[in-house]
Amino acid sequence: MNLILLFQDDFIDNTGVARLQGRRLRHVLEVHRASVGDELCVGILNGQIGSGKVALLNQSVLEMEVRLERAPPAALPLTLILALPRPKVLRRVLRSVSSLGVKKIILLNCFRVEKSFWQSPFLIESSVKEQLVLGLEQARDTVLPEVLLRPLFKPFVEDELSAMIKGTLPLVAHPTASAPCPRNLKGTVTLAIGPEGGFIPYEIEKLTACGFTPMQMGERILSVETAVPALIARLF
Amino acid sequence: MNLILLFQDDFIDNTGVARLQGRRLRHVLEVHRASVGDELCVGILNGQIGSGKVALLNQSVLEMEVRLERAPPAALPLTLILALPRPKVLRRVLRSVSSLGVKKIILLNCFRVEKSFWQSPFLIESSVKEQLVLGLEQARDTVLPEVLLRPLFKPFVEDELSAMIKGTLPLVAHPTASAPCPRNLKGTVTLAIGPEGGFIPYEIEKLTACGFTPMQMGERILSVETAVPALIARLF
Repeated sequence: MNLILLFQDDFIDNTGVARLQGRRLRHVLEVHRASVGDELCVGILNGQIGSGKVALLNQSVLEMEVRLERAPPAALPLTLILALPRPKVLRRVLRSVSSLGVKKIILLNCFRVEKSFWQSPFLIESSVKEQLVLGLEQARDTVLPEVLLRPLFKPFVEDELSAMIKGTLPLVAHPTASAPCPRNLKGTVTLAIGPEGGFIPYEIEKLTACGFTPMQMGERILSVETAVPALIARLF
Repeated sequence: MNLILLFQDDFIDNTGVARLQGRRLRHVLEVHRASVGDELCVGILNGQIGSGKVALLNQSVLEMEVRLERAPPAALPLTLILALPRPKVLRRVLRSVSSLGVKKIILLNCFRVEKSFWQSPFLIESSVKEQLVLGLEQARDTVLPEVLLRPLFKPFVEDELSAMIKGTLPLVAHPTASAPCPRNLKGTVTLAIGPEGGFIPYEIEKLTACGFTPMQMGERILSVETAVPALIARLF
């Protein structure tokens, strides 16, 4: 936790004092090992970053005088369309993409996504948000990404995707593509990443028909956890 | 498992037939769902890649006629010096760097590495090798990376590192550095990545004195699992 993410209801009414308990209190006690007077890096959800001066700290409560003073880091100009990964990978990937600054994530069904993944408790909103918040705290960001679930491939690609990619460079990662992953882009990108085993030819055809260009990172096949940060770091 | 990694003692004496049981047999039965006559992607440890034609397959044994025909993917020209991560992260990072094609990894002690991490059973040779093999199988590679443990920072940096970095570009990832991470390098790199919380100033000074240039990927602080593939994909 390199930044303590604060929510409006953490603040004592009409003051700049935030009062924390639970996970964040324990982290400040056990990892930061803070004392009264210390300044901790804080930020407010979807808002500014600054410092929290510890005014009170014991085993049951932390109170900080909060001063917000600067903008969070710039968002990545990227919409990520990700074939729904297996549940425990999903959690780590959500943290990772949140820390990298992705602000729009679509979790998509594909032929090679196991149906059972859609029943995972890790897909419920509070669980998704928990991982996104951990990613923000890691990266010192405050802006919560939006996550959309799209459990039907065809209607998503046919009815929704054309509008979504307008004004962006639409790319699909595909290990057998001939084009290499572009580098150092300045514009807005929509990036689609397939499941373990990859997109099937029908899915690549549908994405290509919609305007996506297949591209690859080399002949190595990477797991989604490795491919996501690698592709994002290569693109931007 | 996108490639089944074979070892010399998998082969029936003086034949090109490999006989597998255990984990690889189960994977072929349950994930590949192969049948007699199918061709599977195989490779031999530190050697070539080719195909294995299934000659016999039942619940207790798989036999394949192996034909090796091409070189594994090129190695990354990179030596990775990594502050020893916490054990469960270590396992995933070893898989990830192995899949990315890193062939030399030094696990280093630093001030902010918890001493207990060095007692982890995940550091024993067989456990490290298991993760490296999983990474090779993921990426369709055969060349096992070398992993060196260096539990003392100062003697490693003072006595060993100068020789190790000769002829390479030595870089240390450091979030407060002024230089950005270079891109699209063609030469050989030595990359040092610190622990959670980063290198301490003394460690950065020692690395800088040895010839390392501090550089950063932006103002976001990334976890080691995200930073490793991101830095590698940015560099090469």
